[in-house]
Amino acid sequence: MSNTYGDRFRLTTYGESHGLAVGAVIDGCPSGIAIDMEAIAKALARRSEGAPRAEADKVKWLSGIKDGITLGTPLCFVVENKDAHSDDYASLEHMFRPGHADYTYYMKYGLRDHRGGGRASARETLARVVAGTIAQQLMPEIAIHAEVAMLGPQSDDNTTGGIVSCRITGVTAGIGEPLFGKLNASLAAAMLSIPSSIGFEIGVGFAAAEMSGSEYIDRWSPSGDGSTTSNHCGGIQGGISNGMPIEFRVAFHPVVSLPQPIDCLHEDGHLETVVIGGRHDRCAILRAPVIVESMAALCLINYIL
Amino acid sequence: MSNTYGDRFRLTTYGESHGLAVGAVIDGCPSGIAIDMEAIAKALARRSEGAPRAEADKVKWLSGIKDGITLGTPLCFVVENKDAHSDDYASLEHMFRPGHADYTYYMKYGLRDHRGGGRASARETLARVVAGTIAQQLMPEIAIHAEVAMLGPQSDDNTTGGIVSCRITGVTAGIGEPLFGKLNASLAAAMLSIPSSIGFEIGVGFAAAEMSGSEYIDRWSPSGDGSTTSNHCGGIQGGISNGMPIEFRVAFHPVVSLPQPIDCLHEDGHLETVVIGGRHDRCAILRAPVIVESMAALCLINYIL
Amino acid sequence: MSNTYGDRFRLTTYGESHGLAVGAVIDGCPSGIAIDMEAIAKALARRSEGAPRAEADKVKWLSGIKDGITLGTPLCFVVENKDAHSDDYASLEHMFRPGHADYTYYMKYGLRDHRGGGRASARETLARVVAGTIAQQLMPEIAIHAEVAMLGPQSDDNTTGGIVSCRITGVTAGIGEPLFGKLNASLAAAMLSIPSSIGFEIGVGFAAAEMSGSEYIDRWSPSGDGSTTSNHCGGIQGGISNGMPIEFRVAFHPVVSLPQPIDCLHEDGHLETVVIGGRHDRCAILRAPVIVESMAALCLINYIL
Amino acid sequence: MSNTYGDRFRLTTYGESHGLAVGAVIDGCPSGIAIDMEAIAKALARRSEGAPRAEADKVKWLSGIKDGITLGTPLCFVVENKDAHSDDYASLEHMFRPGHADYTYYMKYGLRDHRGGGRASARETLARVVAGTIAQQLMPEIAIHAEVAMLGPQSDDNTTGGIVSCRITGVTAGIGEPLFGKLNASLAAAMLSIPSSIGFEIGVGFAAAEMSGSEYIDRWSPSGDGSTTSNHCGGIQGGISNGMPIEFRVAFHPVVSLPQPIDCLHEDGHLETVVIGGRHDRCAILRAPVIVESMAALCLINYIL
Repeated sequence: MSNTYGDRFRLTTYGESHGLAVGAVIDGCPSGIAIDMEAIAKALARRSEGAPRAEADKVKWLSGIKDGITLGTPLCFVVENKDAHSDDYASLEHMFRPGHADYTYYMKYGLRDHRGGGRASARETLARVVAGTIAQQLMPEIAIHAEVAMLGPQSDDNTTGGIVSCRITGVTAGIGEPLFGKLNASLAAAMLSIPSSIGFEIGVGFAAAEMSGSEYIDRWSPSGDGSTTSNHCGGIQGGISNGMPIEFRVAFHPVVSLPQPIDCLHEDGHLETVVIGGRHDRCAILRAPVIVESMAALCLINYIL
Repeated sequence: MSNTYGDRFRLTTYGESHGLAVGAVIDGCPSGIAIDMEAIAKALARRSEGAPRAEADKVKWLSGIKDGITLGTPLCFVVENKDAHSDDYASLEHMFRPGHADYTYYMKYGLRDHRGGGRASARETLARVVAGTIAQQLMPEIAIHAEVAMLGPQSDDNTTGGIVSCRITGVTAGIGEPLFGKLNASLAAAMLSIPSSIGFEIGVGFAAAEMSGSEYIDRWSPSGDGSTTSNHCGGIQGGISNGMPIEFRVAFHPVVSLPQPIDCLHEDGHLETVVIGGRHDRCAILRAPVIVESMAALCLINYIL
Repeated sequence: MSNTYGDRFRLTTYGESHGLAVGAVIDGCPSGIAIDMEAIAKALARRSEGAPRAEADKVKWLSGIKDGITLGTPLCFVVENKDAHSDDYASLEHMFRPGHADYTYYMKYGLRDHRGGGRASARETLARVVAGTIAQQLMPEIAIHAEVAMLGPQSDDNTTGGIVSCRITGVTAGIGEPLFGKLNASLAAAMLSIPSSIGFEIGVGFAAAEMSGSEYIDRWSPSGDGSTTSNHCGGIQGGISNGMPIEFRVAFHPVVSLPQPIDCLHEDGHLETVVIGGRHDRCAILRAPVIVESMAALCLINYIL
Repeated sequence: MSNTYGDRFRLTTYGESHGLAVGAVIDGCPSGIAIDMEAIAKALARRSEGAPRAEADKVKWLSGIKDGITLGTPLCFVVENKDAHSDDYASLEHMFRPGHADYTYYMKYGLRDHRGGGRASARETLARVVAGTIAQQLMPEIAIHAEVAMLGPQSDDNTTGGIVSCRITGVTAGIGEPLFGKLNASLAAAMLSIPSSIGFEIGVGFAAAEMSGSEYIDRWSPSGDGSTTSNHCGGIQGGISNGMPIEFRVAFHPVVSLPQPIDCLHEDGHLETVVIGGRHDRCAILRAPVIVESMAALCLINYIL
């Protein structure tokens, strides 16, 4: 049931990359909210900026809104897939590309939609961005900002990954849950759910392993307001926010659709060198920050509502 | 509801460090299993090896077992807290130690058990180790091995953290869920739920950000059996296992109970220099691998059952 | 989050009666199934037979199916609302009809879609019938049959309710869960989730209260195959099926949209006699059996998958 | 995972009737509550009044409480099984009693604890009463009262069932959820989870099927405060409370442990006439009201917290 995120503000996404549409149902959005459609359009534009598949990504709302105001009932929205070039994938019907989820989906489901990655396509993140933008609107006191902190190596014929950092301000102390519901654990899961993500660290993260306790520990600031003079822990202790900015980083591996010919695995077990069609980003990381922000918002709203 | 982990094999832990007992209820364990009590005792010994608070950690089973065999009903177990030195904490009743969850628990709940970290104490991980050992017994085809991959800097008066690596073999291709139920995302959340953890990476992790796509991509091995000639992705693609070993690393920050005097924050807002009593590890990371293994097992069993 | 039913075969419905569309996302449907669209059309025809709002109820599938076969990914479907006469409800914008959910929705959400019952409309059951029909297809060994067992009193100017009985055969012994996950408890909840339902009994139900233990108890049949010579318990013991037919009854109160003028409550607290527009059934119970069957199927599939 | 009830105030019960203990973990109880232990003792006394197995039922609290005040962490409690006469059940080790869950548990789990009903014993309701009493304490504005509304036929050598009615006052309008989370549906499931329950009706219930719409409909009272001049619906409309008392009835079948010899089914398929040992109520319904109240409280608190 992995297509649903959250328990209070619950996002259920649907749609294959080359099917009729992608979209979602959002359950748990409070009633009486005037959804900021312009903010959604802007966020979607950030998500598709410079992408080779340039769809209008027009959001159609089927339910849950009347006269622009939420009813407290499920919000269903639809974004049609108009610019899909499914023919580009014809030669891949029985082939597994390396680095993609083709093989693992096939092993799990026994079949798959081979066109454009099907359900595993990053096009699904569109629904997350719509929902995440609404979530942010519900927490106006909280600001979430992500940016590319490191861009992978640049070369002529290859693809690249990088690191996105995210900083959240305005979360008061006491937000989160202990034990298995830790806010940092949920953020980690939210980030690792983004296609191509491969690592998560909060505060100083892996660098903490090279620090002594005396270097690492965040000391109380003399003001006595609970703030600290450093933020090595990244704003969360024992799974609960401490009022300092929440800061984390997400690593993304390079795009695995290489431009050069590459060996694919046929369902019958033989390898075959293929020039993979379809339109792919060489540098998808540039569009990752808005997705990181959206998932952070979806994570937080479930603690705050 | 953050005291429960899992949905099929569901662990609900309870207990404060200096209360009467810690323990858990395990729901969803299949019937007809002869639980390996010796394996549990060994795992618990690994968890407490060299720890300053050396309790017998004897597990008493209240339910779910008859004649040594599971009934399919909830397993409740109890481990008494015998060696708690609660008086050591008397001076901390109204003080928040830096680096600990004292302050955040107080901000969330309005009160807390200040003795030995209360619910936030690492003593709670005892219950995870018991349950994780049972989970491993239910998946005999799968081997989970964790070890300290990097130990933090050594100095005379200070504490240290480090990195634990974990390798899981025997997971066939097709285990996991796509989207928000990705196996890697669940592993990340499981690891970040361990006290003092501060980062998670799978496969090459953060190093992937410095690789080109051509370097990163895991190519099919000529055998055509779905294996790959490298394992940069760490055995999971699109959230689903690909049959290669699952490999990840977890960063732990140094123990935040420093031996030297340190400023604590009083509830009334003033700082006070305190020598923190209680018995604390300087190097808890040496006991982290068995907890990493246990949480990995608890994560996996929920996909496999 | 009450718009989702089930945990393994998970139905999330959306849509207001007079919005653009109603529909649902189904998550957890296995891959590789050729969905029987004709069976769905027939079930929908049973649901709308003789109803005053005679829409085509054409189901459009947005995702999860390729070449007629399920992919294991979420199935999203849309049924447009074409025949809504929203103007009929203009006079009710600030009025609460008696017997309806107008007032309770308003008290919960602070606003509502007053047109045609909005989200509380029985039109939402359309989505349940689509999903329930798919669920039945996944359990071909199980037959679910519901029918009107008692029709309420007939009079010229009034509306009526009745009792629907349901019989399920083909459920082998051992299906269900004990304690809080009892199959009978889940069936009760599923039935009480249907609009206008007001009672549920299994086996002899309320009549059991008038029987002695000796009369009530279901005795083993001499065959020794676990069957019993009577079925007073209705096929479920301790929350788990015993292999006998599962038999239950659901009471429905009369339709609460009366044809005669009736006092409505204005938001400002005064009463006003109104002739309620809109098109309403006098005898909706005749269309209830297919909804009972669908909810029974949705209930069962979550135990069986 | 049927041993857990609720999502916000979450009760996980454990224990077999003739094991070491029964009890539960309660997760989600707010912090800072002084639990009324006397109220719990009184409720437990109501539960066991006149029962043949007269245990002290002393509750031992292992966690979640310090100095009598809840910490917001899981409450674990244990009630030892002291008065179990397990030998009474020796002859039933391979026999399925008619009317009991012996056979269905065996078919589900492949084995069972045959002593005293094992996990299916009504002794488990003890944990519900403890938790339900705490839940009531958290809603002091709400009064829940259940009583025996009808007692089954009285005879010398037999057992009896009956009907329990329950009335809840103090629930303001707007409590509940629509669709699948209807308050009435949850109450139905809660009641059907009680051992021996066989029917649930709210308001006039099954009698509604014999009423015309004009008789049934609850008309607004002239006061304009949202109250109605009758309460045929039982205080819930569209799944949400309307501010009127919530009124429902639960049918219980007679105790199925008959005093006279009866044919049991052996695991090998032959029938055998047995005088069933153990101590059983002839008239357990007299102790059902406190369980009905407890489950009603557990149901409500999950909507109200």
